[in-house]
Amino acid sequence: MITNGSQQCLDLIGKVLLGRGDPCAIERPGYLGAIQAFSLFEPAFVPVPLDAGGPEPGALGDAARAGARLFYGVPNSQNPSGTTWSSERRREVAAALEGTGTIMVDDDAYGELRFDGPARVPLRALAPERTVMTGSFSKILAPGIRLGWCVAPPAIMPHLVTAKQASDLHSNTFAQQVAARYLASIPVDDHIARITGVYRRHRDLMLALAADLFPEEVSWTRPDGGMFVWLTLPAGCSSLALFETALKSNVAILPGLPFYTDGGGDRTVRLNFSNADEASLEEGMHRLARALAGQLRSAP
Amino acid sequence: MITNGSQQCLDLIGKVLLGRGDPCAIERPGYLGAIQAFSLFEPAFVPVPLDAGGPEPGALGDAARAGARLFYGVPNSQNPSGTTWSSERRREVAAALEGTGTIMVDDDAYGELRFDGPARVPLRALAPERTVMTGSFSKILAPGIRLGWCVAPPAIMPHLVTAKQASDLHSNTFAQQVAARYLASIPVDDHIARITGVYRRHRDLMLALAADLFPEEVSWTRPDGGMFVWLTLPAGCSSLALFETALKSNVAILPGLPFYTDGGGDRTVRLNFSNADEASLEEGMHRLARALAGQLRSAP
Repeated sequence: MITNGSQQCLDLIGKVLLGRGDPCAIERPGYLGAIQAFSLFEPAFVPVPLDAGGPEPGALGDAARAGARLFYGVPNSQNPSGTTWSSERRREVAAALEGTGTIMVDDDAYGELRFDGPARVPLRALAPERTVMTGSFSKILAPGIRLGWCVAPPAIMPHLVTAKQASDLHSNTFAQQVAARYLASIPVDDHIARITGVYRRHRDLMLALAADLFPEEVSWTRPDGGMFVWLTLPAGCSSLALFETALKSNVAILPGLPFYTDGGGDRTVRLNFSNADEASLEEGMHRLARALAGQLRSAP
Repeated sequence: MITNGSQQCLDLIGKVLLGRGDPCAIERPGYLGAIQAFSLFEPAFVPVPLDAGGPEPGALGDAARAGARLFYGVPNSQNPSGTTWSSERRREVAAALEGTGTIMVDDDAYGELRFDGPARVPLRALAPERTVMTGSFSKILAPGIRLGWCVAPPAIMPHLVTAKQASDLHSNTFAQQVAARYLASIPVDDHIARITGVYRRHRDLMLALAADLFPEEVSWTRPDGGMFVWLTLPAGCSSLALFETALKSNVAILPGLPFYTDGGGDRTVRLNFSNADEASLEEGMHRLARALAGQLRSAP
């Protein structure tokens, strides 16, 4: 089904699967937009800790056995952490969900923006009857055109279609025609390779500058795709304070707090490397490093 | 706020104002799409009978005093009945809502498509602090472009904006640009006068044919705008049976049942006159008249 960006898939999934108080498992940290979309249905979020390999299967199994209606994750180059679930972890996730009533929601917004290594197996291939997969043209074509999609098993799709019709009847057919004709007129894989090349250079630049400039007490992820690097500040620091300081020098960062459904995350920061050009990125990293150094000096 | 057609306004209004079991007043009959949109939030519908002048103020006052969160109506050339609320009735509706917590939702999808008489005062002018008004480019430009809008008082709009962002971030900016530039490039009032002229001719043709061809036991409305004529069949007839018969001769009508939240309406039928050309409309009315006559002959 075509939707208004993949964000609308989350709204429709919430409408179909979530009611007030229903357990809703989500990565910790988890995508802010999903938390916002699902929150309208007032579920009880069950955070599943994310480590470098993906979500912890034990915690996920506990959530599934406790009746989680769904488990939402971004297995490829996650927003916000940049984490990609390993192949082994994907199989463990599928195994943890097997025999439970929990639906896997695989938000694949960044799967096409891969910089290093092979694509991992999609969850849909491991658990076809219990996975709803969503994707987007926002990251490879244009966000303003609001086109995304979802693939769902036959037991779920009719409910999503009904929710879509009640929500806005259908997605813009004019924009769909424009996008379809445009994509048919260009070599799409070459286009994706080109933008992926740009984003890879930006990531490499951001990581090199972080290693050069950031205080050694700060740690960060090395994303294999997508748009984000995730910082962890040392004890005594505050991402909100860093946000305020950085903004004064015209550098926008996103404090990690809203990616946590259970509090915490106050020393985490999401950095975006896809949007700014390389000169701005370099200048921004210098300014951010100065803000960081200032905060570390004043930390207790 | 710009939305994906005015249908999305109903979804956002439901998200902001309705929870499970909340009283939700709506015209009887009421717009099917609103019933579908609101139903996802599982309110308790409170039907307010619609007569030729508009909703009954007494029943509305009762619903408002009983805590209705909103009263949804289509004051201009209603879908499905074609009814336009009189100016007096509008003032009575505003008076019935005054001092209560009930929000008026004025769905003005058809206000531009006026055939006869002056435009009536919008509810927003009578009850500015408690009216959310929605409109659409679907009826004057193109439904496929999915552009609508709502105007809401300052106490409500921020909640609608938050719900919009959670639902799909924003509406297609490309389609908005295209629509804005197109509308700026044409004489919009002339365009509306032209399509209104076409629809008026269609309405006149449908009403003349109904008077000529339909059995005298059938009654119908005379809409002063919009797209719909509303039939009431005599006792013993069934709009579902008429639907089946008419469809066999390739005539599509809409049985009125889904416009009632409390059952009933099984002898009502919505006819659309905007879409078919005049020759098809004439042929369709002849076929429908034959189907009607057949049903009346077999009615008990």
